[in-house]
Amino acid sequence: MKYRKDKVEDINIAYIGGGSNGWGWTLIGDLALEEKLSGNIRLYDIDYDASCNNEIIGNNVTKKCNAKGKWAYKAVKTLKEALTGVDFVLISILPGTFDEMESDVHLPEQYGIYQSVGDTVGPGGINRALRTIPMFVEITEAIKKYSPNAWVINFTNPMSICVRTLYKVFPEIHAYGCCHEVFHTQQLLIDMLKDMKNITGIKREDIKVNILGINHFTWLDEATYQGIDLISLYEKFVDKYYKEGFTKGDLNFWINSSYWDSAEKVKFDLFKRYGLIAAAGDRHLAEFVPSSWYLKDPKTVEKWGFHLTPVSWRKEHKKELIEKAIKLVNGKEEFEIEPSGEEGVRQMKAILGLEDLITNVNLPNLGQLTDFPKNVIVETNALFRKNSVKPIAAGSFSKEIHNMEMTHVLNQETVVEAVLNEDIEKVFRAFLNDPLVIGASLDRNDVLRII
Amino acid sequence: MKYRKDKVEDINIAYIGGGSNGWGWTLIGDLALEEKLSGNIRLYDIDYDASCNNEIIGNNVTKKCNAKGKWAYKAVKTLKEALTGVDFVLISILPGTFDEMESDVHLPEQYGIYQSVGDTVGPGGINRALRTIPMFVEITEAIKKYSPNAWVINFTNPMSICVRTLYKVFPEIHAYGCCHEVFHTQQLLIDMLKDMKNITGIKREDIKVNILGINHFTWLDEATYQGIDLISLYEKFVDKYYKEGFTKGDLNFWINSSYWDSAEKVKFDLFKRYGLIAAAGDRHLAEFVPSSWYLKDPKTVEKWGFHLTPVSWRKEHKKELIEKAIKLVNGKEEFEIEPSGEEGVRQMKAILGLEDLITNVNLPNLGQLTDFPKNVIVETNALFRKNSVKPIAAGSFSKEIHNMEMTHVLNQETVVEAVLNEDIEKVFRAFLNDPLVIGASLDRNDVLRII
Amino acid sequence: MKYRKDKVEDINIAYIGGGSNGWGWTLIGDLALEEKLSGNIRLYDIDYDASCNNEIIGNNVTKKCNAKGKWAYKAVKTLKEALTGVDFVLISILPGTFDEMESDVHLPEQYGIYQSVGDTVGPGGINRALRTIPMFVEITEAIKKYSPNAWVINFTNPMSICVRTLYKVFPEIHAYGCCHEVFHTQQLLIDMLKDMKNITGIKREDIKVNILGINHFTWLDEATYQGIDLISLYEKFVDKYYKEGFTKGDLNFWINSSYWDSAEKVKFDLFKRYGLIAAAGDRHLAEFVPSSWYLKDPKTVEKWGFHLTPVSWRKEHKKELIEKAIKLVNGKEEFEIEPSGEEGVRQMKAILGLEDLITNVNLPNLGQLTDFPKNVIVETNALFRKNSVKPIAAGSFSKEIHNMEMTHVLNQETVVEAVLNEDIEKVFRAFLNDPLVIGASLDRNDVLRII
Amino acid sequence: MKYRKDKVEDINIAYIGGGSNGWGWTLIGDLALEEKLSGNIRLYDIDYDASCNNEIIGNNVTKKCNAKGKWAYKAVKTLKEALTGVDFVLISILPGTFDEMESDVHLPEQYGIYQSVGDTVGPGGINRALRTIPMFVEITEAIKKYSPNAWVINFTNPMSICVRTLYKVFPEIHAYGCCHEVFHTQQLLIDMLKDMKNITGIKREDIKVNILGINHFTWLDEATYQGIDLISLYEKFVDKYYKEGFTKGDLNFWINSSYWDSAEKVKFDLFKRYGLIAAAGDRHLAEFVPSSWYLKDPKTVEKWGFHLTPVSWRKEHKKELIEKAIKLVNGKEEFEIEPSGEEGVRQMKAILGLEDLITNVNLPNLGQLTDFPKNVIVETNALFRKNSVKPIAAGSFSKEIHNMEMTHVLNQETVVEAVLNEDIEKVFRAFLNDPLVIGASLDRNDVLRII
Repeated sequence: MKYRKDKVEDINIAYIGGGSNGWGWTLIGDLALEEKLSGNIRLYDIDYDASCNNEIIGNNVTKKCNAKGKWAYKAVKTLKEALTGVDFVLISILPGTFDEMESDVHLPEQYGIYQSVGDTVGPGGINRALRTIPMFVEITEAIKKYSPNAWVINFTNPMSICVRTLYKVFPEIHAYGCCHEVFHTQQLLIDMLKDMKNITGIKREDIKVNILGINHFTWLDEATYQGIDLISLYEKFVDKYYKEGFTKGDLNFWINSSYWDSAEKVKFDLFKRYGLIAAAGDRHLAEFVPSSWYLKDPKTVEKWGFHLTPVSWRKEHKKELIEKAIKLVNGKEEFEIEPSGEEGVRQMKAILGLEDLITNVNLPNLGQLTDFPKNVIVETNALFRKNSVKPIAAGSFSKEIHNMEMTHVLNQETVVEAVLNEDIEKVFRAFLNDPLVIGASLDRNDVLRII
Repeated sequence: MKYRKDKVEDINIAYIGGGSNGWGWTLIGDLALEEKLSGNIRLYDIDYDASCNNEIIGNNVTKKCNAKGKWAYKAVKTLKEALTGVDFVLISILPGTFDEMESDVHLPEQYGIYQSVGDTVGPGGINRALRTIPMFVEITEAIKKYSPNAWVINFTNPMSICVRTLYKVFPEIHAYGCCHEVFHTQQLLIDMLKDMKNITGIKREDIKVNILGINHFTWLDEATYQGIDLISLYEKFVDKYYKEGFTKGDLNFWINSSYWDSAEKVKFDLFKRYGLIAAAGDRHLAEFVPSSWYLKDPKTVEKWGFHLTPVSWRKEHKKELIEKAIKLVNGKEEFEIEPSGEEGVRQMKAILGLEDLITNVNLPNLGQLTDFPKNVIVETNALFRKNSVKPIAAGSFSKEIHNMEMTHVLNQETVVEAVLNEDIEKVFRAFLNDPLVIGASLDRNDVLRII
Repeated sequence: MKYRKDKVEDINIAYIGGGSNGWGWTLIGDLALEEKLSGNIRLYDIDYDASCNNEIIGNNVTKKCNAKGKWAYKAVKTLKEALTGVDFVLISILPGTFDEMESDVHLPEQYGIYQSVGDTVGPGGINRALRTIPMFVEITEAIKKYSPNAWVINFTNPMSICVRTLYKVFPEIHAYGCCHEVFHTQQLLIDMLKDMKNITGIKREDIKVNILGINHFTWLDEATYQGIDLISLYEKFVDKYYKEGFTKGDLNFWINSSYWDSAEKVKFDLFKRYGLIAAAGDRHLAEFVPSSWYLKDPKTVEKWGFHLTPVSWRKEHKKELIEKAIKLVNGKEEFEIEPSGEEGVRQMKAILGLEDLITNVNLPNLGQLTDFPKNVIVETNALFRKNSVKPIAAGSFSKEIHNMEMTHVLNQETVVEAVLNEDIEKVFRAFLNDPLVIGASLDRNDVLRII
Repeated sequence: MKYRKDKVEDINIAYIGGGSNGWGWTLIGDLALEEKLSGNIRLYDIDYDASCNNEIIGNNVTKKCNAKGKWAYKAVKTLKEALTGVDFVLISILPGTFDEMESDVHLPEQYGIYQSVGDTVGPGGINRALRTIPMFVEITEAIKKYSPNAWVINFTNPMSICVRTLYKVFPEIHAYGCCHEVFHTQQLLIDMLKDMKNITGIKREDIKVNILGINHFTWLDEATYQGIDLISLYEKFVDKYYKEGFTKGDLNFWINSSYWDSAEKVKFDLFKRYGLIAAAGDRHLAEFVPSSWYLKDPKTVEKWGFHLTPVSWRKEHKKELIEKAIKLVNGKEEFEIEPSGEEGVRQMKAILGLEDLITNVNLPNLGQLTDFPKNVIVETNALFRKNSVKPIAAGSFSKEIHNMEMTHVLNQETVVEAVLNEDIEKVFRAFLNDPLVIGASLDRNDVLRII
C-alpha cells in the first residue's frame, strides 16, 4: 500500500465469496468509479469457476476508459492465497444452497410460521446461523493466521451472528458489518421530503440520523435535514399514508413490483406503536415481532403491504444472473459502470484516511447502546478515520422496545455459543425463545424436523 | 424496643392489611410461638371492621397460657397511626376485589389466554399491578414520613412489582419481599429424599439451596442435604415420576385435592428442558413460559397435572374464612396455635440480632445475579443479621434461561414506570410483550377491553 | 430562531460572565467573522459595568462593514433576564478574585507545594472548586427555570467539576465543557510536521486525533495527518528535543516569553514514560502527577522548561485589559476582528445543524471511556449535529495511566459531593488524596489554613 | 473422600509450602483437634528436608491419644505427586529468602521510605510480587493439570496478587484467600467490650461484622454483639484511648512486646478520619496511606505506637523455629495440640458440607463491593456451604476511601499484568503510583536499584 499525494495505490483486498454475481459486480462497479484507490482483488469462492468469471469481468472493466480506479482481479483457490498480507477482507457469502434456504423458510409454514425473508431471526435465521457459524470460524482462523491486521468488512447474513463469530474467534480483529437497510430508510425520508415539502435533489448523506438497535431491527430516534426535524414530519407522513401505504403514486406499486418492495405499512404501524422510525425493510422488521402482528398468515401479510419472498423467486433470479455472467464473460453483454448506492468503497477510503465518514455499522457494544450487554453486536453510527472505526454513543431505548430487542440479542448470543460448543439442545432452547416460534404449538419432534 | 438478655421487648409492628383472615392469623400464631419477642401490633386495613376482629382474636391468643410471645393488638384507622415510630412494617394486602380478579383471570380466556393464578405476570398480573402500584405509592410515602428506619416486609403480589415500587418511591427504605414458594420446593426435596433414599425427619432449613431468578420464576442450581447432591438425585427422581407426576402415592392426589396442589409435572418438564430445579409451584411457573407449553387450553393444563385456580374458588374460600373469623371473635371456635411454616417471625428475630439467618428474599439487584440490570428486584439468598439484610452472590443463568427471565424483568420495569408516569400506552406495549399474550391474536380493542 | 436558507437568524445567547475582557472579546470577534449566524447576546456579569462596556464594544463591532455576522449586545442585571428563552448559554466566569487565587496558589508554597496554574487540581483547584460549585448551583437552577432546553457551553475552570455540577443539579441539561488545550497540542503536531517533514500550511482540523482522559489531563493515543502516523513521528520528535525542549528555534523562547509558554519538556517526558501524547499545556499536566516529578521546587520547574505562573502576573495582565477596555469603549482604540482559534462559534453552528463537527469536549461518561465510572466528566471526541452532541468511543488506558486518572476522577467526585452536601470534613479528606498534597507533610491545622 | 454419618474420611490435602514451621504446625494442631475429618496430607516444599521433618512431626501428633482427627503425613518431591486427585490445596509459601526480603524492606529506607511489614504494597510488596507471581503461575498450572476440581486456599502474601494470579491463569479454579487480620480486629472488639462494658467470655464468631476492602486494607462499617452496636461503642473507645493507645493496662505493652504488637493508634486515627473501623494490624494499615501520615520516619512510627518489623527479627525468629523443629523431630520437645485461632480447618469443614460458615475471605469481585471493578480480588464476607463459597454483598465506601482503595486495586492489577507479560517498564510505572513512593523523590536509577 502506497500513499501518493491524496491517492492510495497498491491496496490488496481479499474478497471471500468472490464468485458472487450480485455483490461482486457491485464492488467491481464502485471500485471503477473511485479514482483515488487502486490495487489488487483476490477472489475466493467455494465455486472457483464463478471466481474466474468475475476475474475476467473485473479485469475487462479495468480496461475501460471510464474506469477511473484501476484494479487487477485474480481468482484464487485457497483462503491462504486470498488472505496473506491483504489490507482489507470483504466477506459476502451465501451460506448453503437455495434448496437449504427453501427448507429454512417454507418448511415452518406447515406449522403456521410464515417468514418474509428468513435469513436473520426465526426458524430461517437460526437454521442459516447453524450453517454459517462454522464457515465463519474457518474464515476467522485464516484471517488470524494470514492477515491479522487487515480490516474485515462483513456483508453476510445473519449479520449480528456473523460479526459476533468474527470477534469470538479472534477478539483483536478489526471487523465490522455493513448493511444497506438504513440507507433505504434514509431514501424513504428523501421521498417523504419530496411528498410532504416538495424538496428535491437531496443526497442520502444529508439525511442525518441517529441509529440504534441490532441489524434489521434498528430504529431512528433523531433525523434531520438541514433545519427540519424529520421525526415530527414523519408523524404527519404516517397519518397521511397509514391506510393506503406509501406507494409513490401507484397504489399497486408494491404488488406488481419485485418481491423486495413494500408499501411501508409495517414501518408506519411500528411508528404509531412506538414513536420511532423503524429503519429496515418491512419484510425484515415483521420477523422480529410476534407473528400475530404482521405474519399470521399470507392474508395478513398482504393486508400489511409486503411479500413473503419465496425462495423459488430467488432461484429464478439466480438463474438470470448466471446467464448474465456468461454474457459478460463472453463479451455478449457490456458491464455498465454505475454507482450502486452501497458504501463499502467509501468506507475503505475513510479507513485509509482519505476522508472522515460517519455511517451506521454493526460493531461490538462498548457502551454505544446504553443498557445493552457489553460485546454483543449492535448497529449504530460510527466514526471512520485512518485505521480507526469508533462507535458513536447512540443512547437507549424505552424499556418496552429494549425488551423486544433484548429477546433477539440474547437469543443470538445463545445460538452463537451453542454452535461454537456444538450443543444442539441449546439451539433447540434458543429456537423456542424466538417470537415467531413462541406463538406456534411445536412439540419436540416438530422442532427437530425444522432445525 | 428493649433488649433484655436474649429477648427483645416492646417491639412495635405495623401490619398493613391487618384485617386479613389468612396471613393475619398466620402471624398471630407464629408470634405466639416465639418466646423471645413481645410488643405491640397495629392493625391497619381499609376494612377497619376486619382489623377490629383481628384485634380481638390476637388479644385472646395472647391471653392463652401456651402463647409464649405476648403481643398487644390494636386496630387503627390511619396509616399515620399505624406507622409512626414502628420497628417493622408488614404489608400483606389484597389489591382490589375478587370481582376484579375474576375479570383479570377469566376475561382473557375469551381470547384463548388461560391463567392458573393470574397474580404475577400475564394479563392478570399486569392488571393487578395497575391496581397495586398506586396503593404502594401511598403506603411508601407514609413509611417515608412516619417510620423511615423501619424494616418493611412485603408479602403482597405481584411481589417484584410491589418491592420495586417501595424502592422507587423511597430509595433509602429497608425493605424486602418474602415468599414461601421456595420453601415448598425444599419440602418437595424432603419428600424426594424419603421417596428415593428413605431418609426422614429432615428439617426444611437443612436443605441447603442456591436460589436465582425472580419471584415465582426462581431456580435452584445447587441443592444439598449433608453430603448428598440433590440435583443429581432430582434427575433420577424426575425420570421416575415424569410421566405420572409425583403424587405421594395417590395417583389422583392433586386432582381431588385443593386448587393449590399439583403433580409437579411442569417442574419436572422444566428440569428436563433446562437441567435446573424450578423453585415455585407449577401453577406459577406455567405462566412465565409460552402459553403453548402448559397453558394452551384446559385439556393441556389437565395433562400437565395442575389446576386453573378459578376465582370462584377463592370467593368460596373467602366466605369460609369470614365465617371462621366470626366464630373466633365470638369464642365459638378456639384459635389453634400452630407453626405456619412461614418465616416472617424468624426473619424479624434475625434482624433484631438474635440469630443469623440465611434465606431467600426479594431484593434490588446489587450484583447478586450477574448480568441482571442493577436495582431490578430479584430473588436470591440473603444473610440476615442485626439491622442488616445482605444479598448473597447467586451466580448467573445460561443464556437461554436468562433470556426468558429478562423478558419478565424488563416487562415489570416497563409496567412500574408506566404506572408511576400514568402512561397507559406504555402499559399496552408491556402487555403485548408478555409471553402469555404473544401467542394470542389480540387487536388494540381486545387489549383495551382486558386492561 | 429562524432558519433562512443556510443561515440562522435571531439566535438568542446568554453570556454568563459577559463582562470579561478575554473570552468576551474572543466571542465578539468570532461571531463577527461568521456570516451564517446572527441574533442577540445578553451579557450578564456580577460586574454590571464591565458588561455595559462589552455591550458598547460589541455593538460597535457589529456596525463595522467587515463584521459579517450581525449581533445586538445588551447588558442585563439578572440571571432571569439573561436566560429567559435563550438558545445558548455560555458560561465563562472567574470564580472569586485574584486575591483569593493568590492565596490558593501561593500559600501552599509555604508547605513546599508549588503550583504552576492552580485552577484545576491540587490545593488551588480544590479551593477554586469550593468557591465555584455554589455559583454553578445558582446558575444551573436558573437555567432549569428559565431556559431548560438551551445548549449550555462551559468554559470555566475547574472544568470537570463545573460540568459535573451542571448535570448533578439538572440531569436533563444539554451541556458540555469546551477547552482549547487539545487544540494547542494539535498545533504542536503541526509545528512538528514542519520541523520533521517540512510540511506546512496544515489546518488544525486536519490533524485527526483520538482523545481520552479528563480535562487538562488528556492524552492522544491516535493521531494522523493524511496517511502519516503522528504517534511514531512524535517518538522521533521527542528524541530530538527531549533534552533542550522544543522552542521553535529560540533556545530561550519559553523563558523570555509569556508565563503561558513552555518548552514542552513535561509532555516529552510523559511520552517517554507512557508512550502517549499528553494533550494539555505542561503547566497543567505537571499538577496531575506526583509533585516530586516536575513541581518539587522552582529549580525543578525551571529545569523542566515551564513557569509557575504567579498570580501577580495575572493581576498585572488584568490591569492592561481593563485599560484596553476603556480605550475600546472610548473609541481610543480600534477592535481588531480576527479569528481567535477558539471553537465556540463553530460548535454553535454545528448544533444549529449547519455542519457536522467532530471535536473534543467534556461530557458525562456514557461509556466513551471504558472502565471509567458512569456519569463522571471525561474529555473525548464527540459528534456535533443539529440539537445533538454525542460522545464517540475513545477506548481505554493502560492500567497505570488509568490509576493516575482515577485518582483525580474520584477526588473530583468527592469534592463535588462534599460541597453540595456542605461537608467540610469530606473536602479535607479529598484534599489529602491529591498527589500534590500526598508528598507534603501537612497536619490538620495546616490543611485548615489552606482550605 | 467418604461421608460416614456426620464425618468425612479419606480427605486428600496438598500442602504447598509444607516444610513451614509456622503455618505447618498450626495446621497439624488444628487438624488434630477436629474429630469429624481425617485423611492424608501431602507436604510439598522446595526445601524437601523441611517437609520430611513435618512428615515426622505430623505423624507423631496423629499417634497421640488426644489427637481426635487422624491424618497421615507424607513429604513428596513434585507438584504432580502433591496435587494429583486431591480435594484441597493449601498454599502457604515464603516467596524468596529473608535476605531478599531484607533488601525489599530496608534498601528503600535509604530513600526515606520506611515500611513496617513490606509484604503487601510499597516497594516491599511490589518486589515480593515480582518473585511470587511466577511461582504462582507454576503452581496454578499444576493445579489445572492435576487437581482442577480441588478447593484451593491461599495463605501467602501479597494476598490479593496471589489470588488474582490463581484466577488469571485458571479462571475456573475454586480458590480463595484466607487471612487472620480481621480476626484480630474482632478480638480487639472483644477486648473493648471487656474494657468498656465489662462483658467477658465472648467468642470471636459472635462479633458480627460486615467487611469491605482489600486484604490488609479492610474496614468494618457494621459490627454488633447481640443487641449492641459496636461502631458507636468504638467511637467512645477511640476517644478514651486515642492519645495513649490501647495497651491492655500496660502502657509499655506494645514497646516491650513482640514486633507484631501495636497500641492500635493508627486504627484509632483512621477511625477519627473516616468513621469506619480499619480491620487489619496497624503495621499493615500504615503502609496503604501516604507515608507522611504514620511512616515518615522511625520517630513518627514510634509516636504512633507500632514497630518497623526489622527483617533481622524475622531471621532470628526463623532460627528459633528451626531449632524447635529439630527438637520436635528428635522427640526432645513435645508438640502441644492447641487451637491456633486460625480458621482453615473450619473452612474445609464447611466446604465439605458439615456446617454453614460465614467468614471473611479474598475472592474475585462479582459485585460484592459496589463500584469496584469486576474480578479484582476483594475481601468481604462469604457464605461457605458444601462445595460452595459465595461472596455476600458488602456495600460500598464513601468516595474518599474508595479513592484510596482504588489506588492499590489498580496498582495490583498493573503489577500482575506486568509480571505476566514480563513488562518491567510497567512494573516501574506501577511502583511510582504507590502512595509510599509518591512522596519520595526517586529518579529512574533509584527505582531500578530498588526493584
